[in-house]
Amino acid sequence: MAASKFASNQFTIFVTLFTVLFLVLFGIFGRYSGETLPNGSPDFGKVSRDYPLLHDTHGFVLIGLGFLVAFLRRYGFSALAINLLLVAFVLEWGLIIRGFLSPEFSQHSAFSISLKDIAKADYTAASVLISYGAVVGKLSPIQYVILAFIETPLSIVNEFILFALLGVGDVGGSIVVHLFGAIFGIAVARVVFKPSQIQSEHQGSIYHSDIFSFVGTVFLWAFWPSFNSIFAVTAAEQQRAVVTTFLALLGSTVTTFLFSQLLNKEKRFNFKHIASATLSGGVATGAVATLVLSPLAALLVGIVAAIISVLGFNVVTPLLAHKLGVHDTRGVLSLHGLPGIVGALASVILLFLTPTEVFGETIRNIYPLHKTDSKDGRTPAEQALFQLAGLGVTILFALVTGVITGVILRLKIWRQVREKENYSDTDFFEVPEDFDFTTRVTSHIERVELTEHTERTKLTNNEFTN
Amino acid sequence: MAASKFASNQFTIFVTLFTVLFLVLFGIFGRYSGETLPNGSPDFGKVSRDYPLLHDTHGFVLIGLGFLVAFLRRYGFSALAINLLLVAFVLEWGLIIRGFLSPEFSQHSAFSISLKDIAKADYTAASVLISYGAVVGKLSPIQYVILAFIETPLSIVNEFILFALLGVGDVGGSIVVHLFGAIFGIAVARVVFKPSQIQSEHQGSIYHSDIFSFVGTVFLWAFWPSFNSIFAVTAAEQQRAVVTTFLALLGSTVTTFLFSQLLNKEKRFNFKHIASATLSGGVATGAVATLVLSPLAALLVGIVAAIISVLGFNVVTPLLAHKLGVHDTRGVLSLHGLPGIVGALASVILLFLTPTEVFGETIRNIYPLHKTDSKDGRTPAEQALFQLAGLGVTILFALVTGVITGVILRLKIWRQVREKENYSDTDFFEVPEDFDFTTRVTSHIERVELTEHTERTKLTNNEFTN
Amino acid sequence: MAASKFASNQFTIFVTLFTVLFLVLFGIFGRYSGETLPNGSPDFGKVSRDYPLLHDTHGFVLIGLGFLVAFLRRYGFSALAINLLLVAFVLEWGLIIRGFLSPEFSQHSAFSISLKDIAKADYTAASVLISYGAVVGKLSPIQYVILAFIETPLSIVNEFILFALLGVGDVGGSIVVHLFGAIFGIAVARVVFKPSQIQSEHQGSIYHSDIFSFVGTVFLWAFWPSFNSIFAVTAAEQQRAVVTTFLALLGSTVTTFLFSQLLNKEKRFNFKHIASATLSGGVATGAVATLVLSPLAALLVGIVAAIISVLGFNVVTPLLAHKLGVHDTRGVLSLHGLPGIVGALASVILLFLTPTEVFGETIRNIYPLHKTDSKDGRTPAEQALFQLAGLGVTILFALVTGVITGVILRLKIWRQVREKENYSDTDFFEVPEDFDFTTRVTSHIERVELTEHTERTKLTNNEFTN
Repeated sequence: MAASKFASNQFTIFVTLFTVLFLVLFGIFGRYSGETLPNGSPDFGKVSRDYPLLHDTHGFVLIGLGFLVAFLRRYGFSALAINLLLVAFVLEWGLIIRGFLSPEFSQHSAFSISLKDIAKADYTAASVLISYGAVVGKLSPIQYVILAFIETPLSIVNEFILFALLGVGDVGGSIVVHLFGAIFGIAVARVVFKPSQIQSEHQGSIYHSDIFSFVGTVFLWAFWPSFNSIFAVTAAEQQRAVVTTFLALLGSTVTTFLFSQLLNKEKRFNFKHIASATLSGGVATGAVATLVLSPLAALLVGIVAAIISVLGFNVVTPLLAHKLGVHDTRGVLSLHGLPGIVGALASVILLFLTPTEVFGETIRNIYPLHKTDSKDGRTPAEQALFQLAGLGVTILFALVTGVITGVILRLKIWRQVREKENYSDTDFFEVPEDFDFTTRVTSHIERVELTEHTERTKLTNNEFTN
Repeated sequence: MAASKFASNQFTIFVTLFTVLFLVLFGIFGRYSGETLPNGSPDFGKVSRDYPLLHDTHGFVLIGLGFLVAFLRRYGFSALAINLLLVAFVLEWGLIIRGFLSPEFSQHSAFSISLKDIAKADYTAASVLISYGAVVGKLSPIQYVILAFIETPLSIVNEFILFALLGVGDVGGSIVVHLFGAIFGIAVARVVFKPSQIQSEHQGSIYHSDIFSFVGTVFLWAFWPSFNSIFAVTAAEQQRAVVTTFLALLGSTVTTFLFSQLLNKEKRFNFKHIASATLSGGVATGAVATLVLSPLAALLVGIVAAIISVLGFNVVTPLLAHKLGVHDTRGVLSLHGLPGIVGALASVILLFLTPTEVFGETIRNIYPLHKTDSKDGRTPAEQALFQLAGLGVTILFALVTGVITGVILRLKIWRQVREKENYSDTDFFEVPEDFDFTTRVTSHIERVELTEHTERTKLTNNEFTN
Repeated sequence: MAASKFASNQFTIFVTLFTVLFLVLFGIFGRYSGETLPNGSPDFGKVSRDYPLLHDTHGFVLIGLGFLVAFLRRYGFSALAINLLLVAFVLEWGLIIRGFLSPEFSQHSAFSISLKDIAKADYTAASVLISYGAVVGKLSPIQYVILAFIETPLSIVNEFILFALLGVGDVGGSIVVHLFGAIFGIAVARVVFKPSQIQSEHQGSIYHSDIFSFVGTVFLWAFWPSFNSIFAVTAAEQQRAVVTTFLALLGSTVTTFLFSQLLNKEKRFNFKHIASATLSGGVATGAVATLVLSPLAALLVGIVAAIISVLGFNVVTPLLAHKLGVHDTRGVLSLHGLPGIVGALASVILLFLTPTEVFGETIRNIYPLHKTDSKDGRTPAEQALFQLAGLGVTILFALVTGVITGVILRLKIWRQVREKENYSDTDFFEVPEDFDFTTRVTSHIERVELTEHTERTKLTNNEFTN
């Protein structure tokens, strides 16, 4: 490792600077929210509702996204550890940026932190971690931190444009979390692309790293209904979002098996599809979780999302990598990007199919600028246009800012990953002695010859020459 | 792979057919429940109670049962993936079948889906997944799907007979979930039995596959109090079910260690007992979770269940396999079947020991046809007889329908698992390059001779000949 | 294994005795709590608040602490299984001991069991499991049981002294759980120390055992806000404890990365720091979770805890092991002990910095003997002194009782771990065939020579000589 002095110290320098910056900003502007203060919250109703959902929303990013990305055989430590680092870093920075954009801040020059604020910061963490999925294995720790430092405000600004300016409805973040994160991620990935990233012998999984990543899959599945319903306004909407998300996940799960096998020459299932595309129903219902009112619609959203997602993994992801140099390590475009678009389009279609009158005044919980019996506002068709506008703005904004971020990350001042060490823990983590054997050699062993075959005895009594 | 064209396409054909069938049925008859609709659910009380329990009940089948079955060394992908597929498939189909049997359907020709309905479908998924445990590694994906398609309505019909016709009490499903699933599963296993299933060199675990399965164990432990209490009627009953389940699990956990070691010649613990029989207290309290009123009784139910369960694993399971050709891959008879019987018998004994008057009118939450001060009904002795009847009906019904299902699954039209590939992912999943080494060769290596011993250096710099 | 007849039966004898003892005591004195009885709990508010928190508090010990300790390469079965055994054993015994010390017992000669009582027993289990971390791999199963049997009442007595006699505030157990457990554990470890424990070739991890332990890390992170807030009195305090714990964990997570790399010669991260010290913010906020009222303070507590914790792992733990014979397998002093002290000192400092008037009467929920406007009591300075007294008492009490316990455990009557088999499952668990290869040989393989290189083909078709 011939890293310069600056290269080897830049993590220390920048993370210290960011920490000091965050402490100063929290110190000057941060408050505990009223409901946590001694005279706050007279009863347990609200916390009993919010806390389990926060718990799951946080588990979504901390556990689910963390293990999902641990499929690389030589990058398990980094994948998990950097995920944890980014969760913590983005939560701090996201609480601050969201605080600055809050109405409270413009009134009192201070922002406060409640359970819901933490959950909102988890949404931002999710979008950053999705981007991380596109470049996992290709950047150094400091580059990931810089990426997170830049993307956090951009993700929040995009959300602000869609929610506060365009009045887009996206209660579970199909567009503002999943699509933004995916597009931003592949834009960065394109700019930092090197052919070695495709050629690397270290890319890919081993059997047990795939199983570790499945820990992420099942927890994401389990946490998704909470993730999509935490920002629902009424109890009815919360339950509706849960039911919609459940049904869509059922649809996307069965459909993923169907298409994963169908598109495989030898009619085998691809475990990476099973570990990823099964979740696409959760992604796609983010935009419509409280809008859907029929089981059929929920299932169809999930089914379409899974078809698109599996096709993405099978066709789009390899094509982009080999033709356009857009190498997306975990396939975030196929898991989060394309199903995010499905979600946005589903919201458009449903606006035409669902008579919005049935929502009464509560349509404003879904689309805050929609007309109701008592208030003027957008027609469904107008709202549909704004949904499309939100989709377009997000893609464009994520692409442009992702490219710029990629250019910044590519700067020679940052420590880079050595070409031979793509997707490998060795340069950045202390690894145990078996590391190389377990993660590299085992894949090359095709024939073992036991020259001296002795009778099977207790393994503990085995001789072996060391 | 010399699979015929039909054999290699039948998964596609049948899963597509089932998906279309489900979509049609959901489209015609399925509704969102009233509490999820725009004018539903004025407050968060109910959802704050139901949702965390649904979350756990679903985690029970999705995460707990999934990882528990991932102990086979070469069947990790299949075990986890098929579990996920069956969860989704059975939830869809179970929501439909339960809908058809609901009072709402007979009145309005439609059924609706609430959080509790999803949890009920999770119960059915649990019973199917328990059956799956008996045949894991022996069937092809399409056979598992057919099994689930057939068992889902049968499991619900059995439950309907016990609850609606016999007035059996079984709040946490000792009989209708665990016992039914286990008996059905071993009946199927008997019919599809081939000697190769016992002789297979692939049966069994490796060290890390056993540890993966323990992820299932701890989550089942943690989710079990929710699983047993979600259908409790009052807040008191919910808490009672939680306390009972906890205490029984404490009893079964300690007792499993005691008997696992005691019955072992070399006084070693058997990790498979620890990973399974520790949970038998949860199984057995399903039938009595809201009936038990003393810590001693709860502990004893757990202790007896664990003793029976460990004896099952040690004596019954191998005996059945070798003498009767009932090969039960994961030992579901010992984990779910026998403790389920313990639960049913516990409900009989407690009906004699507990003065049911102390329950007042709430005895009808446990046994809906029981007499109370204000209403005529069964005496405790009569109810005990009906509990026994429910036990007998379930065993008989599960045996008969399981055998028939086994006969259907054995039909040559279905793709079968090749004899050499029992308990192996290779025919049905893409596997990574290390697969064979990690899951097969390592178990045969008794001696490694390092012919050239060089000084320990950075592992990344190792030479190795490829 | 030349274990004497007594040695090989003592687990059976003692665990049977303890089980009978517990059954007798539960039978005579144990009751279900009023809210679980037929006429209890009219509404779901309380159970909806308590149950999800109990669920997490239990998951904390069952899942989090269990997997965290599974990092040893050859001790995965034992680490996980013994953790599970101790959870169950300590919950039973702890419920009894706490019952005997309850006001209810002195009035009615009986104690009752509610959800909160189970959570309190989980606190005691946590302290025992932390002690277990210091000696993991060095004791036989019966020794662990004896340790737990002795430590459970001692831990509860220490808590009783601090809470009931000294009026110490420690809502999340920085002092009574984490510090007590750590000090007790290292005291035991010192007494049972043998040089073979340091020299053992089996100490340490392999790549996948480290990843298994990270399952523990992320779940501890996720469960910690619940662990610290379950005994908060008001809804405001619960939310405050959640926010404080979250922010401190953010601080400790980022800071751990900073210092783990900074203190490493090659500027690599140490995965064991990442898996442990990131959690130190949770430990340290136990004593101040409901006292902190500013985000800055919460973050700083986490940051300081992480610095101390990483320094502990880097400097203190190895020093103690090599100079003083205090070998702490999992580094519980650095993860739980030192951050526990940080928590205690934070409570002292905050008592001087926070004007306790802002809490009004609710200061008594934090410090029950504190003065309020309406009641006489301690000044903040006096309370600070009592906090320090509690810290001192705990260290002293844990040290003395830990040493005595260690002496008891060292008695030759107990089966001991053979020196060659430190940190190894082989003497106490049935292990699969690959065990020795996976957990021992792989670490020694530096060069693999494939003498005959044939073209890469399907792995299932590999020849290999068996």
